[in-house]
Parts: sequence; structure tokens; C-alpha cells
Amino acid sequence: MITSEKVNDLYSRLYSEAEAGGYHLNPDEEFTRDLIEALLINTQRYGYQSCPCRLADGVRDQDLDIICPCDYRDPDLTEFGACYCALYVSGEIARGEGEVRSIPERRPSQRDRSHEGQRGKGEEEKHADGEQHGGGGAWEKEPTYPVWRCPVCGYLCAREHPPEKCPICKADKDHFKRFL
Amino acid sequence: MITSEKVNDLYSRLYSEAEAGGYHLNPDEEFTRDLIEALLINTQRYGYQSCPCRLADGVRDQDLDIICPCDYRDPDLTEFGACYCALYVSGEIARGEGEVRSIPERRPSQRDRSHEGQRGKGEEEKHADGEQHGGGGAWEKEPTYPVWRCPVCGYLCAREHPPEKCPICKADKDHFKRFL
Amino acid sequence: MITSEKVNDLYSRLYSEAEAGGYHLNPDEEFTRDLIEALLINTQRYGYQSCPCRLADGVRDQDLDIICPCDYRDPDLTEFGACYCALYVSGEIARGEGEVRSIPERRPSQRDRSHEGQRGKGEEEKHADGEQHGGGGAWEKEPTYPVWRCPVCGYLCAREHPPEKCPICKADKDHFKRFL
Repeated sequence: MITSEKVNDLYSRLYSEAEAGGYHLNPDEEFTRDLIEALLINTQRYGYQSCPCRLADGVRDQDLDIICPCDYRDPDLTEFGACYCALYVSGEIARGEGEVRSIPERRPSQRDRSHEGQRGKGEEEKHADGEQHGGGGAWEKEPTYPVWRCPVCGYLCAREHPPEKCPICKADKDHFKRFL
Repeated sequence: MITSEKVNDLYSRLYSEAEAGGYHLNPDEEFTRDLIEALLINTQRYGYQSCPCRLADGVRDQDLDIICPCDYRDPDLTEFGACYCALYVSGEIARGEGEVRSIPERRPSQRDRSHEGQRGKGEEEKHADGEQHGGGGAWEKEPTYPVWRCPVCGYLCAREHPPEKCPICKADKDHFKRFL
Repeated sequence: MITSEKVNDLYSRLYSEAEAGGYHLNPDEEFTRDLIEALLINTQRYGYQSCPCRLADGVRDQDLDIICPCDYRDPDLTEFGACYCALYVSGEIARGEGEVRSIPERRPSQRDRSHEGQRGKGEEEKHADGEQHGGGGAWEKEPTYPVWRCPVCGYLCAREHPPEKCPICKADKDHFKRFL
């Protein structure tokens, strides 16, 4: 059973982690509590914190991209100011200066994911260096990502667009410059 | 009007963010409060937290390098143990084991900045890939920076010199090694 | 003299820093307090926080790899779920779902370290660019490390294996993909 205390604990952990990294939870507390309860239910059911708004497969490897925070959160924050569930929102929306809009599903269809997985596997073999990578470890499949640099602290990250805030020094997105 | 409460709020946010990233605010509280009040006044005036010790242009794009924390903070911390305003200081000075000295202006003159901007724009066109970069997004102009690696946690950053502390694992600067 | 208050202060600082970066202190408080006291004794004796479980040379440059957190912590966490001293442990052990095993010494012998140092120095001269690197600054000696990318936030790090958690967005290790 998901007690109110467990929801509070996860809420406060996710809140601190979000703020520390320059992210924000949805300021609508009731809405956010419901999503956090759903995360706890999914953790009980599957053993991992699968996205509350998407149908999980139940196999961790197949669901890796939708374990919260999901692989689609940051591109959705950039484009729509909120993730697919609206658990995470932009600073603008967190400050009450904007509204959450409807967010289209960015996750590729199951068919496309399994094709990509097969291509991915080929790539992996091609690059294989015989090493055991201890958990993480597939080679990044296409597409590769540009590397962004924070000109204040030198933080580097590889993603489609720069983050809303530098997670280290909190410089705004428009400070970032492309490095590679 | 800048209330004392607003100064307190920003003070405590900047303090936590600084400490979390391995940085330090000036331990002289009265001096630091005055700078933080000036940051709030600049935010009201310009819409962004422009450096309290420099003359802002008033156009965000022209002032990007002096939005606090500014692009010159970290090189000044490395060389002088404090940023230009002495809002941020080294661990040594934060612990009261050193004094803030006078810090020369590192920002290029307006004339040099606008030349650089023009060169920068040329570069940008040359590298342009037709993509919309969502806010951040100019290609890094010359000079490029060495990439440093923390041998404890593997953190990478691109800057003239390594940071005083690794923002992730707090290893000291002399642990860092050049990676690229 | 190491007062109980000083132990508490360092304990709480190390605890917050560990959790913020996705690391964990050993949950056995008495054991952990003893290690932290030993860190404080070493700091008094040598001027730096040398590993409590290894014999320090007393010269910072020679001991750089065993200043806590040491260069061997993260590979030991990956392979054994704990660092050599068991001051830092994996999430599994922190949650009481695993036991600390005996951890072999990963640090090269003094003889191998000094050979490596000599090779290192040669490398450094070869790459030297006449610049003063302000503290950190030897070129990374062989081996170089793979670069891992967090697909959620784009965090990059260079290390043998990905970290247990992304220090920025807390994604688990199996999310990471090799980037370079």
C-alpha cells in the first residue's frame, strides 16, 4: 500500500533533486502528488519507476526510455515547457507565468523502437571492444548529439538543445555555446 | 521596492547553489547583502541579473557575459581568489585565510567585444547546420578550451583552468588532469 | 584534538555531498564516524584528507590518488559495491539489501606508481604548451577513458564504467550510453 508518508518522502526527494539540477516539479501540488503516487505504484508493480502516463512493457530493458525522468523529458521541456506527464515543468510555468499545453507523444512507436533496437545492436557489435561495461554500456546509436558548453563554469553536456539552466552554476540556456 | 525579505531569499538561494557546486559567497555578510540588493535592482531594471559592478548595456544579448555569475568569475577566482565584484571568493578567502585584492577588469573593451561578435557571427554562418537551437546556440568562438577530467568521478569540463573543486565529488583542483 | 562536534560537521557535509551526487555513505553510523574521525586526524597530520585505510607518504603529490574520495572509489563501487574503506557504498548496500565484502587493493604498488609517474612526466613534457595550468594540469596519462552520456540530461563523464546514478538527474547506470 502506498502510504501518504511514502508519497511525501518521494515528493520531497524529487523536489530537491529537481531544484538542485535546475529543474522544477509542477507547482500544482495535488496534481503532482497523484503522479508521484502513480510512480510508487509502478515501482511496486514493475520494480522500477515507470512513467505514470505511458503503458509499460514490464521488462526493464524495453522500458528504459520511460523510466522517470524519461529520455523525452528534456526535449519536451525545451519545446513545450513541460514533460509528457507535466510532472516536470519549465521555470516559466513553475513561476506561474505560463500554462501547460497539450504535449504530443515524442516516444517512437513500438515498431520503430524495435527496429532501432536492431540497428542499435548491429552498431554495438561493430564497435564492440570485448570489454564488460558493468551495466550501462551500449554505444550511443545514431543520432549523435551536439556538445554544449556553459561559458561560466565550463560544464559540458551532449543533447539536442542546451538545458534551461546549467545544473552546476545555474546560468540560463542562452549562455550556452556549441562546443563540439 | 527591494524588501529585506527578497534580499534574504536570493542570498540563501545563491549561498546553497554556490556551496553545492564547490563555490563560495564572500563571508562578509553586509558587503554581500549590498551586492545581492544591487543584483535585485538590476533584475528590476533590465529583466536580468546584471553584474552590480559593471555598466550594463540594457540589451540582454550585449550583456550576456556579465549576467551574474559572469563569464569572468571562474578565471578571476583562479587568478585572484575572487570575482570582479568579490561576490564569489575562493575557499581560502571564504575560510578567512586570505584577503581580497584589487581585481583588474578582464572583460574585453566594448570595441573588442563588438569585433569578436562580428567574427563570431561569421563563424556561426560557416558552421550553420540549418538547425534551430532553441535559445542557446552560437558555435563556440575562438579560443576553444582544454577539457579537464576529475580522476575521482570522471566529471568533464572545458575551461582555461580546472575548477577549485569538482562540482560533483568535491575533489580539489590539483586532482584534475587534462583530457582533451 | 578531534572533538565530537568536528566529526558531526564533517559527517553531515560528506553525507549531503554524497547524496547530492548520487553516492552513499556507509549506513553503519558508528563505523562511519570512526572513519570520519580518522580523516580528520589525517588532515591534521598531513594537511589533506588522506585515506584512513592506507599508509600515506606525507607528500601531497605522492598521495593525490588516495585523498578521500580517492581515485579508486568509483571503480570499487562498480565492482564491489563499496570503496576500499567501505566509507562509500552502493545504493543496494546503503538500503541494507547487500553486504560489504572484502575489497582487494586496487592502488598500484609504489614501484608501479613511480614508473607511471616517470612515464607521465615524459608525456607531460611532450604535450607541454608553455601554459601555466593553475594547479591541476598534468595531461591525462594512459589509459584514456570512454566517455559516457546520460540520455536523460546529456551529462558526460569519462570513466571506466558509468556511475551508479547520474549526478545531475539521478538516472540509473543502465541508462548511460557510450558517447566517445
